[in-house]
Amino acid sequence: MNTNNIPEQILGRIKPGPAEQQRMQEVARRIISLVDRAAAGTGLTDISGMLVGSAARGTWISCEHDLDIFISFPEDTPKQDLKAVGLNIARQVAANADNSEERYAEHPYVHAVFDDFEVDLVPCFRVDSAAQIKSAVDRTPFHNLFILDRIEGLEDEVLLLKQFMKGAGVYGSDLRTGGFSGYLAELLVIHYGSFMEVLQAADSWKPGVTIDIIEHGNKQHNDPLVMVDPTDPARNVAAALTLDKFAGFVDRARQYLDSPAIELFFPSLSTRLSDSGFDNITSNRGTFLMALVFGKPDVVEDVLYPQLFMLHNSITDLLSRNRFTVLNGDVWAGDRETAVVLELEVWRLPPVNKHTGPPVWEKTHAEKFKQKYIEYRGFSEIYIENGRYVVDIQRKYTDAADLLRNEIHSCRLGRNVGESIKLGFKILQGSELLELDNQGFREFLTGFFHLN
Amino acid sequence: MNTNNIPEQILGRIKPGPAEQQRMQEVARRIISLVDRAAAGTGLTDISGMLVGSAARGTWISCEHDLDIFISFPEDTPKQDLKAVGLNIARQVAANADNSEERYAEHPYVHAVFDDFEVDLVPCFRVDSAAQIKSAVDRTPFHNLFILDRIEGLEDEVLLLKQFMKGAGVYGSDLRTGGFSGYLAELLVIHYGSFMEVLQAADSWKPGVTIDIIEHGNKQHNDPLVMVDPTDPARNVAAALTLDKFAGFVDRARQYLDSPAIELFFPSLSTRLSDSGFDNITSNRGTFLMALVFGKPDVVEDVLYPQLFMLHNSITDLLSRNRFTVLNGDVWAGDRETAVVLELEVWRLPPVNKHTGPPVWEKTHAEKFKQKYIEYRGFSEIYIENGRYVVDIQRKYTDAADLLRNEIHSCRLGRNVGESIKLGFKILQGSELLELDNQGFREFLTGFFHLN
Repeated sequence: MNTNNIPEQILGRIKPGPAEQQRMQEVARRIISLVDRAAAGTGLTDISGMLVGSAARGTWISCEHDLDIFISFPEDTPKQDLKAVGLNIARQVAANADNSEERYAEHPYVHAVFDDFEVDLVPCFRVDSAAQIKSAVDRTPFHNLFILDRIEGLEDEVLLLKQFMKGAGVYGSDLRTGGFSGYLAELLVIHYGSFMEVLQAADSWKPGVTIDIIEHGNKQHNDPLVMVDPTDPARNVAAALTLDKFAGFVDRARQYLDSPAIELFFPSLSTRLSDSGFDNITSNRGTFLMALVFGKPDVVEDVLYPQLFMLHNSITDLLSRNRFTVLNGDVWAGDRETAVVLELEVWRLPPVNKHTGPPVWEKTHAEKFKQKYIEYRGFSEIYIENGRYVVDIQRKYTDAADLLRNEIHSCRLGRNVGESIKLGFKILQGSELLELDNQGFREFLTGFFHLN
Repeated sequence: MNTNNIPEQILGRIKPGPAEQQRMQEVARRIISLVDRAAAGTGLTDISGMLVGSAARGTWISCEHDLDIFISFPEDTPKQDLKAVGLNIARQVAANADNSEERYAEHPYVHAVFDDFEVDLVPCFRVDSAAQIKSAVDRTPFHNLFILDRIEGLEDEVLLLKQFMKGAGVYGSDLRTGGFSGYLAELLVIHYGSFMEVLQAADSWKPGVTIDIIEHGNKQHNDPLVMVDPTDPARNVAAALTLDKFAGFVDRARQYLDSPAIELFFPSLSTRLSDSGFDNITSNRGTFLMALVFGKPDVVEDVLYPQLFMLHNSITDLLSRNRFTVLNGDVWAGDRETAVVLELEVWRLPPVNKHTGPPVWEKTHAEKFKQKYIEYRGFSEIYIENGRYVVDIQRKYTDAADLLRNEIHSCRLGRNVGESIKLGFKILQGSELLELDNQGFREFLTGFFHLN
């Protein structure tokens, strides 16, 4: 295989052609004029629509039809007006769309579909500098300006890097993925000069690597990658990047430098685990699988996933505090159901539980402990180990699933997850997990066992 | 029960009467004259016998017939001469004993039995101060002088404290017990003033408590109790005291202050566990018992026990490195056999083993790891977790007894224990442990399960 022209081959597949570009421009122009017309009808002046994001910068990937159209208000607009009027304008624009829904970030905005374009209509303040923003989205126009000033001639490099990140499963700064944002990819290309130079740099990245393009950073960050926002000296553009996505990118970069291949730009397809495949894997591994399953809360992923991750951590803590050991764990969300899936190395424990009390020399606690257990008919008398009182008592939960079933309400439950669990949950064990057959759960399992 | 006269009642049982005291004096005098006579025959001058230890100080307990008789040489005697001549004198003296054997500490000495007295005949240097000692035993005559100068009128208090420590199982500075020495008990009484005042002080002891009677300590010690040796500012008299014997004494002291009872002065008798008792206990606890059994090395306890403790620690490490968990462990020595006994909470593990490699960003190690496992047909592909490469491989030992059987030679084995294990060992599991029936093993088991 000729590996020299891989970039050309990739670009051939992902770079929008003239017709696609033109159509995008037309759709954007049409929506902006709809925004401006609706703005004119409000009686307020100086409100205008603007295209931001990758579409505005020529760094969007073919067939990704996401348009970010901001409705920009003068800085002195009262917050209430921006919220009310902004939403009103967005609704009027969306009245021309194929369909639309209101969504909530810091302020409400409207997500609408025009033809095959997914359009976010987002009200924002037009401030003088990114340091003076009044809401998080106000930063975006400054990002737009910074990139537009420097990206000319590098657009293809950004396209390659984004697509490579997709292939590595590390693209997307949403809270589910915890990967690289488009803006971050653009900044990396601007800083290092090209797609290949980004990979070469990543080859020797270590956690804590810091990039400060205009050398104005004024804050410490404790993140695997620090990209000081050129529009805000206190902000790390890569704050959402997790350690494992950081490491995943380094790993893939090294792999590509070592032996370039087109396949690395495209995520491998997840196999669906068959019944017999599942039985084989679980019986070979000899572990115990269980899943806490409950109704999927009706919230966006950026709200749902942090709650699922928190629940997962909290359950893992609960299990290990009770001396069960978790080998693997992950969260999954289907269309209607959600699950925390756990693979346990130790899931059954003997009835005896070594209950460790205070050190003998902490008199007040020591006496309380002795008083409590002196008449207790457990497995042993009170004895001393490592300077502490210990007594062998009856273990409350000898079975991990029992523990989870009875103590789930003591876990840290986010609001929506908590409400859903209160409505009911079930615990599936072993091959019962295959009841979650629909909704791509079997692809999830392939990843869960790290088979791809 | 009248608890006011407990001390009198105890003393009535443990204080040697006039006849016993006189007999002890006679035996000591006789042996000392034997030493002096043998010394005269050597041609060397200035060698003399002296009685040291509790018998010399009036702090020995009735029926405890241990005599320490030192053979004291001038300081300028060459070490070789002391060793040769000292041993020669001791042998001549021992020729008059019922039986005797040579033993080894820093220098050889002779242990002999005269009537019902156990006599140690120990050559030592007569130095000017304890700071100039040429071997560890040279310190003893200084201890003797220090105590003799201060103990008058306090002998009964020492007897009470020693007997109380015996009752608590914390008396004896031998390496098996790791408790309080007689000298330490004497110093405690001298420092605090009486048996009861020692207990009252212990009630609020914390690890690190330091006593320096003549305020001359010049060294930091990291021990639970520091009693600066009045005859040597750098030495901690309580160096052999373990944290658990320290805590055990504090616990018992508190118990006695709370409700004084004669029983606290006498160790409770260990029950012998019956077959059915054993079966009940183990099936209720639901754990797994195993014992590594091998021939008892023919060495003194102060040589044997440190090696057994080291083996026990090393085995516990081996098990926990392999993810088995130990609930209880102890060592036991019978007449001919020795054992490390372990109770496991987790003794079987699934075949899958999460093998964690280096962090992705440590390039050299990372590449070695990937190279090694890229073609490895394990349970998973290589994946990344917490920034490190991980691969699920086949666990080498899924059974704790298998692990121990195959890897015992990788444990830290002291010389004598190592030689014995090389000759052969067996691993007993569950009720097979009752094969060790003879030699008090069933009393040991009662203690092992903390049932007394």
